[in-house]
Amino acid sequence: MYYFNSWNSEYKQPFGAIKAGQVMKINFSSTKENIAVKFIIRRDFGQRHEFEMQEIETGLYSSSVQFDVGHGLYFYYFEITEPTDWGDVKQYYGRSENNGEGVLYISEQDVKPYQVTVYDFDDKAPDWYRDAVFYQIFPDRFNNGNPDGKINAPKANSFLYGSLKDDPFYVKEENGAIARWDFFGGNLKGITAKIPYLKTLGVSAIYLNPIFSATSNHRYDTNDYLEIDEMLGDEVDFKELLDELHANQMHLVLDGVFSHVGKNSRYFNISKQYGENEGATQSIQSPYFDWFKFTDYPQDYKSWWGIKDLPEVDKDNESFRQFIYGKTNSVLQKWNDFGLDGWRLDVADELPDSFIRGIRENLNQYQDTVLIGEVWEDASNKISYGKRRDYILGDSLHGCMNYPFRDMIIRYLTGGMSAYDIAHQLMILSENYPTDIFYNNLNNLGTHDTERILTMIGQENNANAVGLMFSLPGVPCIYYGDEAGLTGGKDPSNRKYFPWDNIPEDTYQLYQKWTKLRNQENLLRAGSFTSFYADNCLGILRYDAGGAFVSMFNPSNEQVNFHFEDLHFSQKEVLSEEIKAMLQEIKIEAKSNVSFKVEK
Amino acid sequence: MYYFNSWNSEYKQPFGAIKAGQVMKINFSSTKENIAVKFIIRRDFGQRHEFEMQEIETGLYSSSVQFDVGHGLYFYYFEITEPTDWGDVKQYYGRSENNGEGVLYISEQDVKPYQVTVYDFDDKAPDWYRDAVFYQIFPDRFNNGNPDGKINAPKANSFLYGSLKDDPFYVKEENGAIARWDFFGGNLKGITAKIPYLKTLGVSAIYLNPIFSATSNHRYDTNDYLEIDEMLGDEVDFKELLDELHANQMHLVLDGVFSHVGKNSRYFNISKQYGENEGATQSIQSPYFDWFKFTDYPQDYKSWWGIKDLPEVDKDNESFRQFIYGKTNSVLQKWNDFGLDGWRLDVADELPDSFIRGIRENLNQYQDTVLIGEVWEDASNKISYGKRRDYILGDSLHGCMNYPFRDMIIRYLTGGMSAYDIAHQLMILSENYPTDIFYNNLNNLGTHDTERILTMIGQENNANAVGLMFSLPGVPCIYYGDEAGLTGGKDPSNRKYFPWDNIPEDTYQLYQKWTKLRNQENLLRAGSFTSFYADNCLGILRYDAGGAFVSMFNPSNEQVNFHFEDLHFSQKEVLSEEIKAMLQEIKIEAKSNVSFKVEK
Repeated sequence: MYYFNSWNSEYKQPFGAIKAGQVMKINFSSTKENIAVKFIIRRDFGQRHEFEMQEIETGLYSSSVQFDVGHGLYFYYFEITEPTDWGDVKQYYGRSENNGEGVLYISEQDVKPYQVTVYDFDDKAPDWYRDAVFYQIFPDRFNNGNPDGKINAPKANSFLYGSLKDDPFYVKEENGAIARWDFFGGNLKGITAKIPYLKTLGVSAIYLNPIFSATSNHRYDTNDYLEIDEMLGDEVDFKELLDELHANQMHLVLDGVFSHVGKNSRYFNISKQYGENEGATQSIQSPYFDWFKFTDYPQDYKSWWGIKDLPEVDKDNESFRQFIYGKTNSVLQKWNDFGLDGWRLDVADELPDSFIRGIRENLNQYQDTVLIGEVWEDASNKISYGKRRDYILGDSLHGCMNYPFRDMIIRYLTGGMSAYDIAHQLMILSENYPTDIFYNNLNNLGTHDTERILTMIGQENNANAVGLMFSLPGVPCIYYGDEAGLTGGKDPSNRKYFPWDNIPEDTYQLYQKWTKLRNQENLLRAGSFTSFYADNCLGILRYDAGGAFVSMFNPSNEQVNFHFEDLHFSQKEVLSEEIKAMLQEIKIEAKSNVSFKVEK
Repeated sequence: MYYFNSWNSEYKQPFGAIKAGQVMKINFSSTKENIAVKFIIRRDFGQRHEFEMQEIETGLYSSSVQFDVGHGLYFYYFEITEPTDWGDVKQYYGRSENNGEGVLYISEQDVKPYQVTVYDFDDKAPDWYRDAVFYQIFPDRFNNGNPDGKINAPKANSFLYGSLKDDPFYVKEENGAIARWDFFGGNLKGITAKIPYLKTLGVSAIYLNPIFSATSNHRYDTNDYLEIDEMLGDEVDFKELLDELHANQMHLVLDGVFSHVGKNSRYFNISKQYGENEGATQSIQSPYFDWFKFTDYPQDYKSWWGIKDLPEVDKDNESFRQFIYGKTNSVLQKWNDFGLDGWRLDVADELPDSFIRGIRENLNQYQDTVLIGEVWEDASNKISYGKRRDYILGDSLHGCMNYPFRDMIIRYLTGGMSAYDIAHQLMILSENYPTDIFYNNLNNLGTHDTERILTMIGQENNANAVGLMFSLPGVPCIYYGDEAGLTGGKDPSNRKYFPWDNIPEDTYQLYQKWTKLRNQENLLRAGSFTSFYADNCLGILRYDAGGAFVSMFNPSNEQVNFHFEDLHFSQKEVLSEEIKAMLQEIKIEAKSNVSFKVEK
């Protein structure tokens, strides 16, 4: 009777998010006559506005809105007024679960509105980044570059693993606190030494977990932002790594951990590691005293998630801000001046918007530097600490770590989500993110903070998981060792040492096949995205005016055979005749996938 | 009224233990006339015998017993019968607490008898041993002899300390079991490299904690008795250590751990470390199957103190016995053939007497090999598993680790025991042990199984503790690092790595002073022993026909001045005129000691 579909260009233009100042055109159709349709729109946390829609032809109602009041989220739906003998009846048309099509609601309170994300300007990440295949390295666990395997500068009161094959293990006190940190002894020289390996694998950029002085093996407890951790090497090693990467047309992104510091840091210095005079806990005269929030000086203080090892920094403190992102003598400046290619911001949700914008402003000095944020949910509508975040709406993050993709892939491949649901949820994400951000996102199947993908899905689903990551829009990022068949649950099992003498050929080749495809095929890097499904098989279509790259995934235990009419497209209208022709017959083996290119 | 004193030669001859076949002469005196005195004697767990004592002069009753029925313990006391108008009254005279003199008992049941230890024959340990200053080394924690500090063959699933200065720490599972063993990486080459250091310190023999293949850092969980643990080195290193010691007139005693093996051992092999076919848990056809007592094969078995890591061996099993001490192809034979100087038997209490005798029989092949047992109490009357042990009565242990001395020294220096008590308890020990055994004992202020002496008594008492150990009969044994001021409570804190770059001069010199005295002064090595006290100061007298060496200890916070008449001697009759002359005036600073030699 009534119809609207936010994914269909006959009903909404343009698709997805809207650049500030742009006009959004909306059509609504009805088979019922003699009705009035209003377009209702609310700005995020703001007032309700309504617009009378014009019936531009029989049964087709139309409206246009220009978004000229700044970036942010808007939510819209439709009000249908039907005159009856008993007075006017009002009904509402809003979003249905997991679909571009909507449903009718009897009561306005119940309406699930459509989201439209309004962003400041197109914010394409540097080309090298968009075209990259990333590789995430947890530095202690990748490779030791010392010829004799000697470990650099082991820390006092730490443990070194007896064998590189040992399973990681947390050494805890009886109360559960970490008693001693455990190290395998990977270092920067070790990464430099493996650049040929990474190149052969098809990798073109590295995201490095923290490398600055710290107490722990993960180094998220920074002790000194201006120093490479001694176990990892020194600035000469760092420069050598960066130069060698650049010489191989590869790039490097560092982890920026600015929400908190280590309790033993130069800034907090609770253990006097940095002497008697430095650090906020040593004296209220300390230049760092104002960085922290003490509830009972010096023993009690605000810390990250209540973890006393990690005193939280007041990111609104101007001295801290200048220290991190000032244009001179700052942390960013120091490492950027080495020629660094970008930063990944730890816990971006816990950094004030203005702090992230300050970082971005520093990076804007350079042409080709990228800023990626750690966000675990749909970053377009994330609320943290009661505030809607605007860090993907311009002048802030280029993109985010795409944990929603990972979640969907795992749920889909393990039977927790249908092909219909994933096909549609992927569309919703692509709709909510500003297009550039969607393509700027860093897609991971796993990270140092998650279970290993193999452990989550099992060997038999690995080909589909890897294929999905590489088929979807965004920049794929391989978590070190996934290509070598590493398994493991959550931290610390997901942080095993790289099994250099035992890399399973099939797993490695699976990754290499997809990095090659991605590196060769512009459609996989830049092609527009839409989804389709048949039964429980998901299809990904990447297309442009010149052709398309189609992948289709069969997670079931049986071979499937589809005809074109079996396929359900999220946006059928984007299909060219050539694509349709290629999709007349599709056969996919059990637990497998097919992919092919369509050229005009 | 009545008097007997087992320490006084007018009342008992000879002093202390009696060699089988020898005659013991006993006198008893009374100021009461018209009584009858009987000498009552029981063999250990045996029947009561009584002998009428002869009144050889007025008030002096005498008896003689020849001990010609084999070694063992005997217990004696006196029955005094006094005729009265109301019939005969019987009273009993037995041992008083901590004294050679006795007291009267009304009832025979209450009498605390005197012990007399009857042993088979004099069993003087080899001269090198009796004259030695020992040094106990826990091999993982002493010194790494690799020039680059590299650790030999670290074990899978173990941890290496990040710094040699780290405090030892047990890495445990939540249930308290050891999760990973922790290693500092000391090795045999490291010991060899420190022979000059030990020589300068005045040490002439080493007792090494276990060095055979094992899983743990303490290596009491033997995996292979015929192999040096790879982390410690190999047989070449072992031979080099032994040869270098011998070239320096030094000696080596190994730790023999034969009560149990490691669960991962070649013999038990629960983890298949030694393949699928070897080991009792792999097959009941295994040559080692009969060594163990399975309660539910293979998962449940008898283990040492219920510790499942340490399956207990059936020491009555003939195949095990031959494996340990057979004259060919046995464990003892293999290592003795390197020229080894002796063994320290772990948990001697838990080894059958006949097993220990089998070991001794093997060692009797050599002239100069010593056998020392781990016993924590007065070894002369220890009962273990319901059986009185006879391991110091001949053809068995040469001596024991002298934990009773350590306990007394600590209690005395920390105020838990008076000078009277320690002076007298030392006499009782010297009385209970066969003289050679008493002098064969290995005296420790601390071991790998106890708190460090410094931690027990504090720096201010250290001079007295060390002086006491060196003044007492027996062979002093320095626990590695005590001379370098190491502190620490029980395991693992007592097993810190040796602080090579931080040896406190005063502590080192204290030890060096006493090793020098001991090495120069035959009286300290071989002199007869007796004790005295004044107020709370203990005196040790070591004497022979030629002179005496006197030490006196003041644990109090004030200087003391004594005259001869203030001194209470356990055996005043042994004092020569020269000794008396030297003891007319004694001044001792607070927390200090004096020692001087008296020559005829």
